Amino acid sequence: LIAPAIARAADDPLPSWNDSRSRTAILDFVGRVTKEGGPDFVPLDDRIAVFDNDGTLWSEQPVYFQVFFALARVKQLYPEHPEWENLEPFKSAISGDLKSLAATGEKGVLKLVMASHAGMTTEEFAQIVVDWITTARHPRFNRLFTELVYQPMLEVLNLLRANGFKTYIVSGGGIEFMRPWTEKIYGIPPEQVIGSSIKTRFEMKDGKPVLQRLPEIDFIDDGLGKPVGIYKFIGRRPIFAAGNSDGDLQMLQWVTGGKGARFGMIVHHTDEKREWAYDKQSSVGKLDKALDAATGARWAVADMKWDWRKIYPFSS
Amino acid sequence: LIAPAIARAADDPLPSWNDSRSRTAILDFVGRVTKEGGPDFVPLDDRIAVFDNDGTLWSEQPVYFQVFFALARVKQLYPEHPEWENLEPFKSAISGDLKSLAATGEKGVLKLVMASHAGMTTEEFAQIVVDWITTARHPRFNRLFTELVYQPMLEVLNLLRANGFKTYIVSGGGIEFMRPWTEKIYGIPPEQVIGSSIKTRFEMKDGKPVLQRLPEIDFIDDGLGKPVGIYKFIGRRPIFAAGNSDGDLQMLQWVTGGKGARFGMIVHHTDEKREWAYDKQSSVGKLDKALDAATGARWAVADMKWDWRKIYPFSS
Ligand SMILES: [Ca+2]
Ligand SMILES: [Ca+2]
Repeated sequence: LIAPAIARAADDPLPSWNDSRSRTAILDFVGRVTKEGGPDFVPLDDRIAVFDNDGTLWSEQPVYFQVFFALARVKQLYPEHPEWENLEPFKSAISGDLKSLAATGEKGVLKLVMASHAGMTTEEFAQIVVDWITTARHPRFNRLFTELVYQPMLEVLNLLRANGFKTYIVSGGGIEFMRPWTEKIYGIPPEQVIGSSIKTRFEMKDGKPVLQRLPEIDFIDDGLGKPVGIYKFIGRRPIFAAGNSDGDLQMLQWVTGGKGARFGMIVHHTDEKREWAYDKQSSVGKLDKALDAATGARWAVADMKWDWRKIYPFSS
Repeated sequence: LIAPAIARAADDPLPSWNDSRSRTAILDFVGRVTKEGGPDFVPLDDRIAVFDNDGTLWSEQPVYFQVFFALARVKQLYPEHPEWENLEPFKSAISGDLKSLAATGEKGVLKLVMASHAGMTTEEFAQIVVDWITTARHPRFNRLFTELVYQPMLEVLNLLRANGFKTYIVSGGGIEFMRPWTEKIYGIPPEQVIGSSIKTRFEMKDGKPVLQRLPEIDFIDDGLGKPVGIYKFIGRRPIFAAGNSDGDLQMLQWVTGGKGARFGMIVHHTDEKREWAYDKQSSVGKLDKALDAATGARWAVADMKWDWRKIYPFSS
C-alpha cells in the first residue's frame, strides 16, 4: 500500500483536482476570504465570482456549441427559405461545411445568428433552445452538449457557493442561448447569466404582451465588453474570475485589479486525448495575451492534462 | 371601547395599510402563490417582483430626486466651467430655476445629466452619489431624500421577501444613481436594480483597470423599455409589478399578461397634505393611460390618502 502524497478528507470539495498549485491556490483563497477577523476577510455581499462559459465551464471544439445550434436551426428553417440554397453563409451551414462557413467570416456568422436567433418571441426562443439542448449530440463524443461540462469546474462552483459566493456566467455567447439550462447544469439561475444579446421589442401579439427578438446586436459581451457587462448587470466588482481565452483578459484584469483579496484563473486546454489541446494559434478560444499576462498577474493556470483527474462528469 | 373593524394580528405584515381593497388583494395574492398544492402555487424560483422607484417607493416631487442631484453636481463643477454662466441648461441649473430648466426640454435635461453623471470612473461616481445622498435634504421636508420612502411599500417589499420573493427595482432613473444606497434603504442589492444607463468603457488609468463613464446613452429603462430591461437582466417574466405612472404601463401589461397568478399594482398620489396629489395632468409621474387600464386589467390601485395610514417612516 502506498499512502497518497497528501491525505484527502472524505469531504474533499475538489475531488477531481490533482494536488496541483491551482488546486491549492483556490482552496487557500476561499479559506482566506471566509476567515472572519482575518486580514483578507470579505463580507458575504461582496463574494461574487464570474465564470466564462465556452472553454471554461464546457468544451468549445471543434466550434462553439452555439454554432451547432445555429446550424441545426438553419437546417430546420431551410424549407421556408429556398433562397438559401445558393446563398452564403446558409449554403455552407445547410451542407454542414464548417470550413466554408468559417471562410464567410464574422459577417457570415452574424447573418447566421440573426437568421437563427431572431424573429420569434423570447418565450418561443427559450423553447427552441430547450428542444435542441436536450436532444442534440456532440459529433465526437455522441453525448448531449450539456454532458461536456468540466467536472472540476462544477466542483469549484459548488465550493464557492458553499462558502457564500454568488456565481455568475459572463460569456461572449448568447445570453438567451444559455439561460434556459444553466440552472439545471451549473446551478446558476438565469438572472446570474451575462452574455451577448440581440435587441428585443415589446409588442402586443394576438392581444398578448410579448417581447419579440430583433435581428440587431444589442451588446457584445467579450473582451473589453466583459467588465462593462459585469458592472452593468451586477453593479459591483467581483473578487473571483475564471476564463480560458484572450476574450477574458480585461475581465481578469478588472476583477483582480480591485482592492483586497482577488483571484484570477485560466483554464489551459492541454489534453488532446481526453479533451482538446490548443492555445496561441487556435481560432476558437485563442489563449495568447492572457496566458502571457497570467504569470505577472499571478493568476492560477489550471493545466487540464496535469491538474484534472477527470474532465467530464461521465469520464471514468 | 370600540373594536377595530377587522382584528389585526400582532405580527400584521402591513401595519401601515388601512383595511382597503388593495391591502386585501396583496395579502390574498401572497397567500395564493405560496400555498403548496394550491391551484395558484408558484415555485420559489419564479417568485420575482419588480418595483418602479420614483413615485412608487419614494417621492418624486417637485422634480425627480435625481434632478436635485444633477443640479447640486453642476453647481459643484461650475468653478471649472465658467462657460456655463450664460449657457442653458447650466445657467438655470446653477441659479436653481426649475421652471427655466424645464423649458430647456429633454435636450436640456440630457445635457445636464451628461455633464453631471459622466467623465469619471464608476467607483468615483458611486462615491459622489453616496456623498450627496447622505447629506442633501429635500426642500419641503428638510429630510434626507432617502427618508422620503413610503413605509407601506417597505412593508410590501418585506412581506414579499419573507415569502420567498426576489425583489427588484425597475426604474427610469439612473441605475448607478440608485445602486449605492438601495440595499441599505430598501433591502435591494445592486444586482437587483435595473434602470437607465450611460455607456462605460474599460480603461487602464494610472496602471489600474477602471470603467470610465461616457456621456452617451446606453439604455432608457422607461415605458416600452421596462419589459425589455427586465428580461435582459432577469431572463424571466416576474409575477408581481408595482408602478405609479404611464412609464410603467408596458411593464404592468407584460408582467400581468403571463400565465398563472399575477399581480399588478399602481400607487395613486392622492394626498396633497401628507405627500402630493397628481395624476393625469402632471409633468412628473404622469398617470393617465395606466390608470384607465387598471380597471380592465384588475390591477390594485393603492390610494395614498385612503389606503395608507402612514406615508414616510418618520410620519406619526
Ligand atoms: Ca471562453
Ligand atoms: Ca415612477
